[in-house]
Amino acid sequence: MRSQADNRHPDLGAALRHLLSSGGKRIRPAVTLLTGIMLEADTERLVTLAAAIEMLHTATLVHDDLIDGAVLRRGIATLNSQWSPAATVLTGDFIFARAAKLAAETDSVLLMRMFSETLAVIVNGELTQMFSSRGIASRENYEQRIYAKTASLFELATRTAAILGEVGEAKIEAATRFGYCLGMAFQIVDDILDFTGEQATVGKPVASDLRQGLVTLPALYYLELHPNDADMAVILGGEEIEQVVMNRLVAAIRDSGAIHQAMAEAHRYVDTALGLLAEMPECVERQALGELARYIVDRQL
Amino acid sequence: MRSQADNRHPDLGAALRHLLSSGGKRIRPAVTLLTGIMLEADTERLVTLAAAIEMLHTATLVHDDLIDGAVLRRGIATLNSQWSPAATVLTGDFIFARAAKLAAETDSVLLMRMFSETLAVIVNGELTQMFSSRGIASRENYEQRIYAKTASLFELATRTAAILGEVGEAKIEAATRFGYCLGMAFQIVDDILDFTGEQATVGKPVASDLRQGLVTLPALYYLELHPNDADMAVILGGEEIEQVVMNRLVAAIRDSGAIHQAMAEAHRYVDTALGLLAEMPECVERQALGELARYIVDRQL
Repeated sequence: MRSQADNRHPDLGAALRHLLSSGGKRIRPAVTLLTGIMLEADTERLVTLAAAIEMLHTATLVHDDLIDGAVLRRGIATLNSQWSPAATVLTGDFIFARAAKLAAETDSVLLMRMFSETLAVIVNGELTQMFSSRGIASRENYEQRIYAKTASLFELATRTAAILGEVGEAKIEAATRFGYCLGMAFQIVDDILDFTGEQATVGKPVASDLRQGLVTLPALYYLELHPNDADMAVILGGEEIEQVVMNRLVAAIRDSGAIHQAMAEAHRYVDTALGLLAEMPECVERQALGELARYIVDRQL
Repeated sequence: MRSQADNRHPDLGAALRHLLSSGGKRIRPAVTLLTGIMLEADTERLVTLAAAIEMLHTATLVHDDLIDGAVLRRGIATLNSQWSPAATVLTGDFIFARAAKLAAETDSVLLMRMFSETLAVIVNGELTQMFSSRGIASRENYEQRIYAKTASLFELATRTAAILGEVGEAKIEAATRFGYCLGMAFQIVDDILDFTGEQATVGKPVASDLRQGLVTLPALYYLELHPNDADMAVILGGEEIEQVVMNRLVAAIRDSGAIHQAMAEAHRYVDTALGLLAEMPECVERQALGELARYIVDRQL
């Protein structure tokens, strides 16, 4: 990943090193590598694929942080907090280009098509969220959003890793579904942490989604429990909400059974993922994938 | 191209229709199609390729106009003049994704690699121009800039069209060089029009590059003729330039032999292109490409 800015403008190299230095959890490339090794994919192509997946993720984060005006990501300064919007847009574009190059280096047209389709799904999801998701309290809308935002890329990771493994259609489908479940669980837990985490840990204000009118799973369950909640009605009405009302609502959601219900939902996805895994070849990577799936629901809680 | 936003958010479809409605000259897909037909490429894959090339071009324009704060493009309102920066960034990303999808549909991994490499060249060129090209009066720097900005995509168009034609290496190389020459000539003429065109026709202030400290071919030749010109020294020094001084300098460049010299340079590229064309199979498309090459130097003058 670091070598992708070689022979380019020095500032691009600096930006790439900066972006990659924070590390992050690297959960997407880990899932890619473990799935591929479990299914006996060619190592060289698999490593290229894992790098392509992480670069695609990084490119979308660069543009997201610019759009959101985020100052910190993974505990380090975002690119947009240090560079002009123009340079940030172009750096994101450059990383897209390098993700596409890495994807092409796996030498599979099928894989390239899936890559471009997933990018379209992610971007379309962001635009849909921007234009028409505020104030919508719908389970279907929520699931579509987290699929576009997170599960689509996890699904791409495990599906393409299985394709590189040249396993049969049934195993490719199982691997796809495995990635999907991991991604859904991952985003649900992220959405729970948005309510339960401390601002210092999460790196952004508590309930940042709800503040923007975006109703995530804990809020959906809360609304089921308290369909006539006056504070929620304000949010759903798209009105400006006072800080004190917001704090009251967040406390009410935290203290309700909603958090527990949302966690149970994340656990169901992980259980489905573990069930799919049981059909896969027994090996040390399968064990590691199981641990990773469990980590997704256990982290930071 | 229009169908690329099907089943996506309605505003994306509207944006795509808006972007494509202006038409523009469509010179890149025209070059792609004519080259491919001349070299007997499969029609379906060729049309997909031409659409991919134009979509890649459109995506870069969407981000460029946002970065430059441009209000008009091809006589119609730019996306960024009507939408938020966030929506504009994402729409550009979506168009990148669709360009990649179309490129993948040509079913050639080699072609995909070239696509992603060209996108990296274009974006790196823009970043380099942004960070380190102001006030530089160098022929080498100029040629690198216009290669990255324009000729690289023309070269991609003709090279990939030739690859789809499955002609031998020699013809692929000739087609590549042909596209390169067309692109260099095209950008030089654009840079001349930036000095000689009327603001109303060009759609931006006269000498917009020079106002930003970017020295293009007419200014380079002017500097050769008048190495001690005080007004040019101000530009090269990176100082803020007064409107009256700028107008004086632009008039001086227009009235000098620099415009003529730059046109002669564009003609040399077109002559080289026509020479390369002479080696290609004789057909109606070859004739049309010859006319297109001549149009590139004759347009709007």
